[in-house]
Amino acid sequence: MRVALAQVNPTVGDIAGNTELVLSAVTRARDAGADLTILPELVLTGYPPEDLLLKDHFVDDSVEALHRVAAACTSAVLVGFADRGENGEVHNAAALCRDGVVERVYHKRHLPNYGVFDEWRYFAPGDEPVIVDVAGVPVAVTICEDVWVPESATEVAKMGARVIANLSASPFHAGKGATREAMLRSRAADNGVWLAYANLTGGQDELVFDGRSVVIAPSGEVVGRAGAFAEDLLVVEFDPNAGAGLGVPLAPPEEGPAEVYAALVTGLGDYARKNGFSDVAVGLSGGIDSALVACVAADALSPGRVHGVMMPSRYSSRGSIADAEALGHALGIDLREISIEPGFSANLHSLEPSFEGMAHDVTEENLQARVRGTLLMALSNKFGWLVLATGNKSELSVGYSTLYGDMVGGFAPLKDVFKTRVYELARWRNERGPAPVIPEATLLKAPSAELRPDQIDQDTLPPYDELDAILERYVEADESRGEIVAAGFDAQLVERVVRMTDAAEYKRRQGALGTKITPKAFGRDRRMPVTNRYRER
Amino acid sequence: MRVALAQVNPTVGDIAGNTELVLSAVTRARDAGADLTILPELVLTGYPPEDLLLKDHFVDDSVEALHRVAAACTSAVLVGFADRGENGEVHNAAALCRDGVVERVYHKRHLPNYGVFDEWRYFAPGDEPVIVDVAGVPVAVTICEDVWVPESATEVAKMGARVIANLSASPFHAGKGATREAMLRSRAADNGVWLAYANLTGGQDELVFDGRSVVIAPSGEVVGRAGAFAEDLLVVEFDPNAGAGLGVPLAPPEEGPAEVYAALVTGLGDYARKNGFSDVAVGLSGGIDSALVACVAADALSPGRVHGVMMPSRYSSRGSIADAEALGHALGIDLREISIEPGFSANLHSLEPSFEGMAHDVTEENLQARVRGTLLMALSNKFGWLVLATGNKSELSVGYSTLYGDMVGGFAPLKDVFKTRVYELARWRNERGPAPVIPEATLLKAPSAELRPDQIDQDTLPPYDELDAILERYVEADESRGEIVAAGFDAQLVERVVRMTDAAEYKRRQGALGTKITPKAFGRDRRMPVTNRYRER
Repeated sequence: MRVALAQVNPTVGDIAGNTELVLSAVTRARDAGADLTILPELVLTGYPPEDLLLKDHFVDDSVEALHRVAAACTSAVLVGFADRGENGEVHNAAALCRDGVVERVYHKRHLPNYGVFDEWRYFAPGDEPVIVDVAGVPVAVTICEDVWVPESATEVAKMGARVIANLSASPFHAGKGATREAMLRSRAADNGVWLAYANLTGGQDELVFDGRSVVIAPSGEVVGRAGAFAEDLLVVEFDPNAGAGLGVPLAPPEEGPAEVYAALVTGLGDYARKNGFSDVAVGLSGGIDSALVACVAADALSPGRVHGVMMPSRYSSRGSIADAEALGHALGIDLREISIEPGFSANLHSLEPSFEGMAHDVTEENLQARVRGTLLMALSNKFGWLVLATGNKSELSVGYSTLYGDMVGGFAPLKDVFKTRVYELARWRNERGPAPVIPEATLLKAPSAELRPDQIDQDTLPPYDELDAILERYVEADESRGEIVAAGFDAQLVERVVRMTDAAEYKRRQGALGTKITPKAFGRDRRMPVTNRYRER
Repeated sequence: MRVALAQVNPTVGDIAGNTELVLSAVTRARDAGADLTILPELVLTGYPPEDLLLKDHFVDDSVEALHRVAAACTSAVLVGFADRGENGEVHNAAALCRDGVVERVYHKRHLPNYGVFDEWRYFAPGDEPVIVDVAGVPVAVTICEDVWVPESATEVAKMGARVIANLSASPFHAGKGATREAMLRSRAADNGVWLAYANLTGGQDELVFDGRSVVIAPSGEVVGRAGAFAEDLLVVEFDPNAGAGLGVPLAPPEEGPAEVYAALVTGLGDYARKNGFSDVAVGLSGGIDSALVACVAADALSPGRVHGVMMPSRYSSRGSIADAEALGHALGIDLREISIEPGFSANLHSLEPSFEGMAHDVTEENLQARVRGTLLMALSNKFGWLVLATGNKSELSVGYSTLYGDMVGGFAPLKDVFKTRVYELARWRNERGPAPVIPEATLLKAPSAELRPDQIDQDTLPPYDELDAILERYVEADESRGEIVAAGFDAQLVERVVRMTDAAEYKRRQGALGTKITPKAFGRDRRMPVTNRYRER
């Protein structure tokens, strides 16, 4: 039996374009002699379509597109689409297309409604398993979450399925690929079936999909694996009645900084491309965050499409400007310098009557950041560049950032990247080469916002390794203040971090989108009220 | 039988404060001789607690608070809280507290997961009805959505319930009060039961709750109604075996602009109060939006707590400044003028090398709006004022607003108010008195952003009555382009409005919170992808 996993990158809402993508994959799979071709979950609508699914005509368009695909199919093809049920309800569905028609439709039975998922908002669950015959082999059709539920695989195996086909759109976070593959291997081994898993690839707003579609033998062995973060057509031939594969060598799946960096490049690149931006602008401070953002942007688009803007003030060190320049030259991006002093001084002057007799404070610091934001947005308006916000998850957690200042931007590549991981990724990018691009000084100096003389981040924040360890427990694991203290952290420090994090919710709510790379990102993953007087026990 | 409906205004997360609120209501109800006291849904946690419910310790705190309440109860009290189920799951629950203990617990069976609701994300549904005995009368316990499902009321009536008690947190939109009361009347009449409905009041982020708790006789007659948008303790005595009440005269429920205006005042007032802001700042342009926002703010806080900031530019007409001043004086708010010219000129000067040889365009218009935003935020930082964004739903729909410019603010009172309704509310506010405050010129002149010479909104946008009619169909009713054209609108115009609305999603995503007053508000009510290539049929 020859199975083709069509790992494609659709765009949400682009039903016509996605249909072309599917038709092209179907043709290539046919040319490769596939008995069965599997496309990802909701490939015709893109994933996740969110409230587009509440439009009746959107679902109608999805069903029409499916029939266009079916007309072009000869051998069996499984396609994900949004289906209309008998009572008007909507289903997350997979169709078996063969010999020019839609032969059978399966409705997803297990609808996730946690984390980033809202599937109960849109879909009615299916109520029966579907097993189809492909070249004499019983193949169970399942969609994403279905295969994460052990009973679901056991049920179809007991019904005689030799192969479980799964159409997936599985959002990435660091390490998810390994977790998922381990789960899939145990599903195959526990039930003595072959597993053919087709995952989406590409970025959609805050989500990226890492692909890595696999075919797994009943022995639990991976006998085929598609690439990560790239379109692919993986064709695997196997004997459905055998228990194991041929023992082909496979490239090990990437992990650690390599996969996270690839996720960031995919997230930004697809956001820009799918929204029609050819160029991006990024404010270069000489610091580590903006340096890493510039690298990600140069790798996602191309260096010539990245516009680095240095915006020094009276508090910028000469070293910072030199570091920003060195980075820009090493990357080969467009570089320009625009002073914020005139705008800063003029606004201060306008405010003098209101501020008379009052001391300088964070107001004047934020004002500098806001003049920078204003200048970047002016460049964006004039040249059509997408502005990238450079803030990281540590800053965003505790609100160490200026709303409408350094938070300005259409996309924030490091939104879900803690500061300690920013360093790790920067070092990895320098090592990857061909040559290091981020100056050593940027990697070694104490982080600073440079908004007042001799300021460093650690005047205000605890050391980043400590901060990030607390945030990981508080933000990602929902641990209480007491639990974090019990794990060995200073009680006063934990109290402070918790309060800062809660108080910054209003800023995060107005922040840019950015790629999710952890199990719990800010955004749809963590839906906290702004008005919130809860005090952690 | 004497029933007390305790219509209170809790704060999300403030479990200790909410417990005090409940205890105080219990005491007052006891003093009034109530046999049964009913508090709203999730009153101990506040509503909606969102992802606070994912913290185990938050649910523990809710259960502990319930036991504190129970200890203080003698006669029957129904209290909404978050409960922990036997297998660790969380329930949206109502407890019958009596004689110092928690006597019985009901778990909500119908969990809404549409519109603004995400209850399947948090709760497991209950699986059985609960009927308790109160002074010899069988009383069914239900929570919010339960009573919207007709079969649910019929079931408990058939089981012998004479009274259906409902604990509610029913988010407001214009006209919802009337719809809801009609539904409740038919529930009572259809099943021949009494209905005692206790609703929440107050604001929480984008939601407001209008109260209007009611007692309804089996005849369908309303025999008691609490006030709208205010705390209240409604005590009603009735014979549970009678079919009708005593025919007491009731104040008619407010509708039209009065209830919408009250909703806006509540939404802003509670956002400010619950987040610790005593004062607000609003940029006054002389136009209708900022005038209405200033009125709402003055009524929500007090005129002395409102700081009107006039920020004229070279394009501001003398009339505009005079209108802003007249409004400010009539309202009695603090007024100041800060010129944006120095900041505007200085930033333009800094950008000259980048913009050399390029024509003026929307960049320079946005730059003015962003200097205004920067100045307002500087006042906010220095004095702790909450900045109010003045944009309305029509502008926000089509993106006729500047991100980080006029969109700056912690709260946007008119976010869900179409421009045509802004005029209606402004006229209503002038008529309400004591004296008109919004100048006639502001009401009569053509709306203008005044960002270039002789600009008016209708250079760029269709007339607002036409625009709003299209938006209502497209945004709120999810009609397709074709359906709107079929209803008689110009095809090209509809196409343009649809495209502008889709393209502005990225701006809305970074906009301030604002009070929901329509059936479908931007925000959690309408979850559209930013990356979205869907083209309406």
